[in-house]
Amino acid sequence: MARIVQKFGGSSVADADRIRTVAARIARTYRDGNEVAVVVSAMGDTTDELIALARQVNPDPDPRELDMLMSTGETVSATLLSMALHGLGLPAISFTAGQAGIRTDDQHRRALMTSVKPERVRRALEQGRICIITGFQGVNEAGDITTIGRGGSDPTAVAVAVALKAARCEFYKDVDGILTADPRVVPNARKLDTISHEEILELANLGAQVLHPRAVELGQVYGMPLVVRPTFNDGPGTVIQAEEAGEEAGMEQYNRVRGIAHEKGVAKVTVVGVPDRPGIAHRIFQAMADAGINVDIIVQNVSHGGVTDMSFTIAADDLGQAQRLLEPVRTAIGARDISSARGFGKVSIVGTGIQSHPGYAARMFGTLSDAGINIQMITTSDIRITCLIDEAAVEHATRALHTAFNEATAAGQAAAY
Amino acid sequence: MARIVQKFGGSSVADADRIRTVAARIARTYRDGNEVAVVVSAMGDTTDELIALARQVNPDPDPRELDMLMSTGETVSATLLSMALHGLGLPAISFTAGQAGIRTDDQHRRALMTSVKPERVRRALEQGRICIITGFQGVNEAGDITTIGRGGSDPTAVAVAVALKAARCEFYKDVDGILTADPRVVPNARKLDTISHEEILELANLGAQVLHPRAVELGQVYGMPLVVRPTFNDGPGTVIQAEEAGEEAGMEQYNRVRGIAHEKGVAKVTVVGVPDRPGIAHRIFQAMADAGINVDIIVQNVSHGGVTDMSFTIAADDLGQAQRLLEPVRTAIGARDISSARGFGKVSIVGTGIQSHPGYAARMFGTLSDAGINIQMITTSDIRITCLIDEAAVEHATRALHTAFNEATAAGQAAAY
Repeated sequence: MARIVQKFGGSSVADADRIRTVAARIARTYRDGNEVAVVVSAMGDTTDELIALARQVNPDPDPRELDMLMSTGETVSATLLSMALHGLGLPAISFTAGQAGIRTDDQHRRALMTSVKPERVRRALEQGRICIITGFQGVNEAGDITTIGRGGSDPTAVAVAVALKAARCEFYKDVDGILTADPRVVPNARKLDTISHEEILELANLGAQVLHPRAVELGQVYGMPLVVRPTFNDGPGTVIQAEEAGEEAGMEQYNRVRGIAHEKGVAKVTVVGVPDRPGIAHRIFQAMADAGINVDIIVQNVSHGGVTDMSFTIAADDLGQAQRLLEPVRTAIGARDISSARGFGKVSIVGTGIQSHPGYAARMFGTLSDAGINIQMITTSDIRITCLIDEAAVEHATRALHTAFNEATAAGQAAAY
Repeated sequence: MARIVQKFGGSSVADADRIRTVAARIARTYRDGNEVAVVVSAMGDTTDELIALARQVNPDPDPRELDMLMSTGETVSATLLSMALHGLGLPAISFTAGQAGIRTDDQHRRALMTSVKPERVRRALEQGRICIITGFQGVNEAGDITTIGRGGSDPTAVAVAVALKAARCEFYKDVDGILTADPRVVPNARKLDTISHEEILELANLGAQVLHPRAVELGQVYGMPLVVRPTFNDGPGTVIQAEEAGEEAGMEQYNRVRGIAHEKGVAKVTVVGVPDRPGIAHRIFQAMADAGINVDIIVQNVSHGGVTDMSFTIAADDLGQAQRLLEPVRTAIGARDISSARGFGKVSIVGTGIQSHPGYAARMFGTLSDAGINIQMITTSDIRITCLIDEAAVEHATRALHTAFNEATAAGQAAAY
C-alpha cells in the first residue's frame, strides 16, 4: 500500500483501445491497494494536429492562445481515461492543471512551474478515488492556461508526485525500460535495471528521449524515485536512482559505460580567422542563443599570429538561420570567413566516473579507429565522451561501441540507453 | 459606438476558412468603433464527435467527465477565432467560461447559470480588445466545468450581454433571419424584420430551432435586444423585440399570423378505458416526466360511465421507452389498454393575439380541410394553434397554411418561421 504517481505518454493513449488497456494497467495498481494519481499526455499526435490547425488560421499564432488551444489535448485524454476507469467499476476523476493546483510563471509555451498545491487531488485520493491529471500545462497568476514545453507531462508527473509525497513516480513507455542503446540500431541492446540521474540526463540531452531532462532533475533535487516501465507488459522497467557506493558499485568496476547514445542531423560551423581577443566568442554564441539555436560541441584552435578558428556544431535544421545571423557578426568582429557543412552525427559513451578513468577515452577512440571511422571533433563531460563523425557512419559506430563496452560485461547491470 | 455581443454557431466556425470569414465579420463591427465580445460554439460537429469518442471508451460516460470533455470543443474554436483576428491585426483574447466568470449550479449536462461576472472581459473590452468567450459552458462552485445543454451557446451570449450591459446581442446564423416558414418546405418563405419574444418562443418550442428558448427568455426578462443576422452576408436580419402597440400594430391588423411551424416524427399514445378519478393523469404524466420524455398535445375525452380515454403525443423516438414505462402504470390505475402509433406530424400557426380572434382557428381548419388533410388532435396556446396530422401530409399542409395566411398579406412585415 503506497501512494503512486503514474505517467502515460501520448502513444500509450493514442486511441480508445489503448486507453482501455492503460485503464486496466492503472486498475491493477489500484486493486493492489495503492493510491494512484495519473498524469496523461494528449492522445497520439493531437498536439501537432492542434498546432497545424492554429497555423491554418494564423501562420504565427499568439503563444497565450496556442497554450489554451493545446491544453485541450490533455483534457480530452484525461477525461476519456477517467471514463474508461469508470467502465471497470473504479471511482476515477479527472482534473485540469488548474484544478490540480499547478501554478506556473507567465512564459507561454515554456512556462516554469512555480508551485504545485494539489489539494483537490489529495482529498480525492484519500476518498479512494483514482485521480487523472492533465500533463504539460499549468495556470499562471492571471488564471491563464500555460504549457511547459514539449514532453512537459514528464516534469508535471514528478512535480505532482513530490507535492503528493508519493512513494514513487512511474513513467509508462513503449519500451521495456532504459536500454544500453537504441534497439533499432543495436538489436542486442539490453535493458538496465538501474541508472543514475546524471547518466540518464546525459542520455536525454544527447537525444535519447526516454525521459524529459527536467523530470530527471526534479526527481534528483527532491529525492523522488523514478521508474521507467513498459505500458503493454508487466516488466519491472528501470529504476533511476542516486549512484550507489560500496559493494554494488564494486561489481561494475570493469565497466562504467552504461549506454551508447547517438544522434544524426548535425551541422558543423567554423568561423575562420577570428581575431584572438576577449569577447569574440561571446559575440558569436550570444547571436545563436538569442535565436534559440542550441550550440553543442565547441572547439577553438590554438591561436596562430593573433587569429584562430572557432568551430561548433548545431542541429542541421538550424544551419540556414545560423548562417544569416553569423554573417553580420563575422563582419563586426573582423573574421575572415564562415564555412559550414551538414552531414555529421554524434556518438557518445555515458557512465558515471568514466572521465576519471582515461582508459575509456582511449578505448572509444581505438574502437572507432578500428572500425575505420574518422573523428572530427571531441567533447567530454564528467560522465560522457562524445565524438563528431560522418552521419553515414553513426550506426556502424554505435554498434561497434556497444560491442566494445557492453557485450564484454558479465552482468545485465552494465549498460544504458 | 456601442458595446455589442455577437454569437457564432458551430456551422459558422466549422473550418479554418469559415473562422477567417467570421473574423472579418467581427472586424467590421469593431472597426466601426464598437466594443465587441463574441460567444462561440464548437466547430461543426465537434460536440457530437467528442460524445462518440467518449462512448468508445464507456457506453455510459459520467456527466462530469463528459462536460469537461465537451468543453474542449469551444476552447478550440475560441482560441482559433482569436488567432484569426490577430491575423487581421486586431487585439483579440479568448476566455474560457471560468475566466469569463460564468458560474452555474451542479447539474452536469444541463446546468443553469447562477451568476455571470465577466470582470476580465469587461477590463479587456475597455482596453480595446475583442473578447472571445466559450459558449455552452460554465464552472460550478467546486471549480468543475459544466455544460448548459444543447444549443447552450445562445443563452451564454444573452447572459454575457446582460452582464456586460451590452446594447444588443446578435446571433449569426446560416439564414437571413427569422422566416415565415422553413424555406426547404415553403420556397417563398419570407424574412421577418421583427418578431416578438412570445412568437419566437412558440416557434422554437415547435422545432423551428433558430434561437434557443432560454436565450429568448433571458432576452425578454432582462430587456436585452436580440437580433438574428446572417453570417455570410450583410443583411439586417430579424429583431426580436417586445410586441408593439399603436400605429405599428395597426398595419398588421389584417393578419396576426407571423409564421407557420411544422414538425415530423411524432407518435400518439392513447390510454384506453381510464377510470375517471383524480390523480390518474398525474400518475401517467409523472412517469413520462421522470424519464425526461416530453409530452406535447394532451386530449382527454368526456367521461362515459366512469371511464375515459387519455391521448397524448410524444417524439416517435421516445415511443419504445414510453410503452415500457406505461404498462405498469396501466395495471396500477386499472386502465383497459394502451394503443399507440407512429407516423404523425404537427403544423402550427403562430402569432400574438390570434387566440383572441376566433377567425384564425376556423381559417386554419378550413385550409387543411380544403387541402384534404384530416386533423387528428388540436392544441392551442394564446399565440398558437397546432394540429396533429399524418406525417406524410405535413409539407403539403405547411405550404397550404403559408399561402392562406402569409401570401395574401401586403407588407413583408406580416409573417415568421
